[in-house]
Amino acid sequence: MNSNMEKPYVVGIDIGGTNTVFGIVDARGTIIASSSIKTSGYPTVEEYADEVCKSLLPLIIANGGVDKIRGIGIGAPNGNYYTGTIEFAPNLPWKGILPLAAMFEERLGIPTALTNDANAAAIGEMTYGAARGMKDFIMITLGTGVGSGIVINGQMVYGHDGFAGELGHVIARRDGRLCGCGRKGCLETYCSATGVARTAREFLAARTDASLLRNIPAENITSKDVYDAAVQGDKLAQEIFNFTGNILGEALADAIAFSSPEAIVLFGGLAKSGDYIMKPIQKSIDDNILNIYKGKTKLLVSELKDSDAAVLGASALAWELKDLKE
Amino acid sequence: MNSNMEKPYVVGIDIGGTNTVFGIVDARGTIIASSSIKTSGYPTVEEYADEVCKSLLPLIIANGGVDKIRGIGIGAPNGNYYTGTIEFAPNLPWKGILPLAAMFEERLGIPTALTNDANAAAIGEMTYGAARGMKDFIMITLGTGVGSGIVINGQMVYGHDGFAGELGHVIARRDGRLCGCGRKGCLETYCSATGVARTAREFLAARTDASLLRNIPAENITSKDVYDAAVQGDKLAQEIFNFTGNILGEALADAIAFSSPEAIVLFGGLAKSGDYIMKPIQKSIDDNILNIYKGKTKLLVSELKDSDAAVLGASALAWELKDLKE
Repeated sequence: MNSNMEKPYVVGIDIGGTNTVFGIVDARGTIIASSSIKTSGYPTVEEYADEVCKSLLPLIIANGGVDKIRGIGIGAPNGNYYTGTIEFAPNLPWKGILPLAAMFEERLGIPTALTNDANAAAIGEMTYGAARGMKDFIMITLGTGVGSGIVINGQMVYGHDGFAGELGHVIARRDGRLCGCGRKGCLETYCSATGVARTAREFLAARTDASLLRNIPAENITSKDVYDAAVQGDKLAQEIFNFTGNILGEALADAIAFSSPEAIVLFGGLAKSGDYIMKPIQKSIDDNILNIYKGKTKLLVSELKDSDAAVLGASALAWELKDLKE
Repeated sequence: MNSNMEKPYVVGIDIGGTNTVFGIVDARGTIIASSSIKTSGYPTVEEYADEVCKSLLPLIIANGGVDKIRGIGIGAPNGNYYTGTIEFAPNLPWKGILPLAAMFEERLGIPTALTNDANAAAIGEMTYGAARGMKDFIMITLGTGVGSGIVINGQMVYGHDGFAGELGHVIARRDGRLCGCGRKGCLETYCSATGVARTAREFLAARTDASLLRNIPAENITSKDVYDAAVQGDKLAQEIFNFTGNILGEALADAIAFSSPEAIVLFGGLAKSGDYIMKPIQKSIDDNILNIYKGKTKLLVSELKDSDAAVLGASALAWELKDLKE
């Protein structure tokens, strides 16, 4: 507690394909200062790191200086917690293995940890959100893709290589939709925001019934459009959510047979579609779950604000870091 | 180490539907004394526990008495580690919730832990077998059913309710074969010994090509028959193993995406079918795995002798108990 008083803040950095967002966070999960830069546009990752530090350092100085910061947590695609590196991330401008954690430690003299974005979200939820006090839960992030962060016995599951928890790439349909990973039928081809839009295009092409979605050029339809149509009572849009929720519930029933979590926490735009998506997911879990697990695992929606969640999640990793180093 | 010297032994008890086998085990995994009784034939679970103690106690006394025993570990179907109870086990003669761990503690004055048989096998493998020194692995038991025991960060995964790790009941084929659990397409309907026999009957009925298996009445075919035929070069039998291994490999590829284990350890009769089953499993894992995991997870066969494994696994739980109580 004493050391918390001396170093009351952590820094969270969320590295996305488009933007890099960072902020200073206190122990209650309040972001007391934040900013962002574009991720691309830097010829080398070193220049990118320089630029993040250049924008971050004024925020740190304005809040008491480097000595007030316990640590830096970074959430990044293909982040490896064990090595502090980003490894072969398809959506980032630099290739190969990028030692980002070490680069920030060198530049700022602050201990730094890094993990993938879904793991960061899970730690954020455990530290500040819906999973506070839970020792066994699974975080599912429903965004452009589907990510997951798994907590068992109160610890993040990183696996032997640092890359555990890719539930977006369990196979939901054998020989199903082609996935960006090169395989077929991955969960994320059905249950991500892009998967929902894909389902909309399939349904519209295969059927002839009226739908508000027919007013939108098929290639432009987004999961938000499907939600808006569902809210207006559009049957076809509601069936798209039923279809999506059913597949996600099937996969979650299998995931429960793995780790029997106290809760599954859903995060991302799709999770905010309310009953349209939550009811079919819950029904599908109930229909597909092994008897001994029935009714035991809570289905929750993230309690972190979308705009803050990535930075909060990454920052929470830095509180963990404190535990590791002391 | 001192306390190991004073109490150098543990007791393992394996409760099966037919037999209850128990033994005294030293720290190297040598069974220094063992015996068994029939599991059924006792009107109440209390009388059953009395009888186990009556047969076990002479072994304990012959090896230095109760003071030499660190603890008792029990492996049992539907065993719950958290409560030390067996809960609604379909294959045992007594119904409801059975507080077996407490019953042995009362009768013998020795601390007792209990878990399900597949978890016990995993702990046995970690303590005395192929998974020594590993912190992340998955044990798959291929018997009448398919069981699993999952170790993450060096700890057994029990889940929030004590029942985690039922990979035999993830869905391998949607709307597939009817399972004893009441659901359809569970992994164990394809990859257990009975699943292999089922596949044999399906293949023989659907096809007309010659096979040694046609010399056996279809309803009597066992997985052992399929193995014997495969060894004699029977194409259809070999295809049954290919089919089985393919489905198991698909499920293991999904399991790897969950916890990214260092190894998967296979146990049971089927696992001893050598290349006939191991090659198709490995090929299917390679064909179905997400890129980042490729070639990283070892596929191993248990190093515990079949006849000893259940008692060794259960006994290993008692060394764990030591860690919990001291």
